[in-house]
Amino acid sequence: MTSPFIPSSYPDLSPISGVTLAAANCGIRYKDRPDLLVAQFCDGTTVAGVFTTSLTASAPVEACRQSLKSGKAGALVVNSGNSNAFTGKHGVASVLRITEAAATSFGRKPTEIFTASTGVIGEKLPDEKITSALGTLSFSDNAWSDAARAIMTTDTYPKMATRSATIGGKIVTINGIAKGSGMIAPDMATMLAFVFTDAAIAHPQLQSMLAAANEKTFNCISVDGDTSTSDTLLLFATGKAGNAAGDCNDFQRALTELLHELALHVVRDGEGAEKFVTITVTGAEHARAARTIGMSIANSPLVKTALAASDANWGRIVMAVGKAGQKADRDALAIKIGGVSVARNGEADPAYKESMIAAHMQGREIHIEVDVGIGSGSATIYTCDLTHRYIDINGSYRT
Amino acid sequence: MTSPFIPSSYPDLSPISGVTLAAANCGIRYKDRPDLLVAQFCDGTTVAGVFTTSLTASAPVEACRQSLKSGKAGALVVNSGNSNAFTGKHGVASVLRITEAAATSFGRKPTEIFTASTGVIGEKLPDEKITSALGTLSFSDNAWSDAARAIMTTDTYPKMATRSATIGGKIVTINGIAKGSGMIAPDMATMLAFVFTDAAIAHPQLQSMLAAANEKTFNCISVDGDTSTSDTLLLFATGKAGNAAGDCNDFQRALTELLHELALHVVRDGEGAEKFVTITVTGAEHARAARTIGMSIANSPLVKTALAASDANWGRIVMAVGKAGQKADRDALAIKIGGVSVARNGEADPAYKESMIAAHMQGREIHIEVDVGIGSGSATIYTCDLTHRYIDINGSYRT
Repeated sequence: MTSPFIPSSYPDLSPISGVTLAAANCGIRYKDRPDLLVAQFCDGTTVAGVFTTSLTASAPVEACRQSLKSGKAGALVVNSGNSNAFTGKHGVASVLRITEAAATSFGRKPTEIFTASTGVIGEKLPDEKITSALGTLSFSDNAWSDAARAIMTTDTYPKMATRSATIGGKIVTINGIAKGSGMIAPDMATMLAFVFTDAAIAHPQLQSMLAAANEKTFNCISVDGDTSTSDTLLLFATGKAGNAAGDCNDFQRALTELLHELALHVVRDGEGAEKFVTITVTGAEHARAARTIGMSIANSPLVKTALAASDANWGRIVMAVGKAGQKADRDALAIKIGGVSVARNGEADPAYKESMIAAHMQGREIHIEVDVGIGSGSATIYTCDLTHRYIDINGSYRT
Repeated sequence: MTSPFIPSSYPDLSPISGVTLAAANCGIRYKDRPDLLVAQFCDGTTVAGVFTTSLTASAPVEACRQSLKSGKAGALVVNSGNSNAFTGKHGVASVLRITEAAATSFGRKPTEIFTASTGVIGEKLPDEKITSALGTLSFSDNAWSDAARAIMTTDTYPKMATRSATIGGKIVTINGIAKGSGMIAPDMATMLAFVFTDAAIAHPQLQSMLAAANEKTFNCISVDGDTSTSDTLLLFATGKAGNAAGDCNDFQRALTELLHELALHVVRDGEGAEKFVTITVTGAEHARAARTIGMSIANSPLVKTALAASDANWGRIVMAVGKAGQKADRDALAIKIGGVSVARNGEADPAYKESMIAAHMQGREIHIEVDVGIGSGSATIYTCDLTHRYIDINGSYRT
């Protein structure tokens, strides 16, 4: 069953000079669909990365963290179907064999090869299927749709976005693909996102721009509150646009927009999602407090099940604000749903009647606004409801 | 639909000298069942209490916190059906009217009246239904079962426990009742529990014993990770046993056992629960870290949905350890399910086959043991699975 939010059409991604792509089926878990993505980059490509904060991070994540120190990238190798997480010394050896084989195939150093794996945790990765496929791939500059499909697990549609920006008078292009249908859903869901640009941007600046954009986008979504062992976001910059180093504000804007678009796709394709929910928190002590409160609302099973039932049970929003552990003035708390004030000054709004938001609650897109009455910190969080389908998907995933 | 863990019989609670009880229907929300509990205490009764840590605590909780300062109790008034939470100045006035009416009825000071309310958040409490019922009640010393039923909301069975202990050569009795089957998480679950004893124990010692027992019992259970605005645990000691002040170790033991029994009933009657899950965490940096890791496993929707499907998906346990934010040695992590080693030294146990635990996973009681390989901190957490019925119950609660 596909997401009710499946797009009617997909964006057309142009080639990025300096990037070639190949997608193939190497038979790790899936049949009849690609499960291996390889991207090759031209000499001089810089790279930035953001990874899971999990203390049980996968072997590929640990290897990427090491390789990122040089700031240089030669190729990216991604498989779906097996996450190579919690696989001990076997997992580390698998990553080593893949990076060495790819380095030999593509004439690069092993530290310039980045890998990511997504799928079941705790099973040994059959890395020989990947290494023996490396020599058989045919690369092109326009295989974006196949690339987006190759990294899918429980995703019901491929996720792609594209933007352009201007740096020092030159137009640069940014393409991105992502997977994940729980921002987090170990086993399968890891969130992976790979972004490619022809801009010339040195590693340290690329890293700080990616971290800033990630903070406002992927770090503001949640499907189920679970954190993957494999979450990986990588940005590759080939430099082929030939721009001089310059003001990168427009690139930062475009990058943030692109990650925002990909992040919202991950929520819209959230496991079992029937509603897309936007939660805006204002009046918090600071932005981080606002994000914590928003996440507390987004991850509350009681809020999520009420949303699934189209029930305007705003008392549960009050509960979730209260348990977030951040400063909130109960007697100044105000809540709007679908733009209608349901509570203010710490009690139900006298003018509010449930009929005023009944149609909104029945809809696909729900807007919740919460002001906690303390300061000027704000954040917007995106999530989905908790439905029977989530239970079915996650109860039956391995069988 | 009742919990599959409903007891085949209930304990027989003897009278507690100095305590009389009345339960009645006053028509707040429920019909044909009691929704009001009043307990009267003899002169000299001391009281201890532990409450929700929610920043959006209900009006009754705030009033109890105030009254607790005197350490003296005259009566307890509890209603179900409406939590009088997030009801602003109306809520505060409601509590005041109830405590004043009860003080007049029972010849006590308003600060000696303790109230608790449980039910829907955000609706004005029709306190006149409670105050006008006060004069019509008939009290007895053995209405424990009616008392336990009067405080139920989504509970499918009443929760009672009794113990005895010896203080200074005298035998004392402790009776307890509890409610709560959703919005259950640490820092006092959505949960009300009232405990009564004839022991003579001064307020400060009573308070420290209650806090210690709570930490090991109600603070170690979780149904859905949501924290109520109304959690209240009160312990009343009438002193009628006539014991001299003395060594209270045996009382502490009995009190902890009683709260443990009540807490496990709350989990077993968890909304939609089909499985009762015990999670033991060892090898953590300290006991608090062990508790945080255990709660991360207990509250993970992915772990809970796998349990509901009887799926031994231990990779999700690894994920939940990783996201807990507490020190863990991934490469020393060991996991047992039903006593069988499934993972050790950071990877799947070579001897493990799913068939070894298939029967255990199909059962009603699941045992998970996790050693995180750091230190000697340990904790045991009790929880339940996440089922379709949880979604049904919480989607339709108000309708």
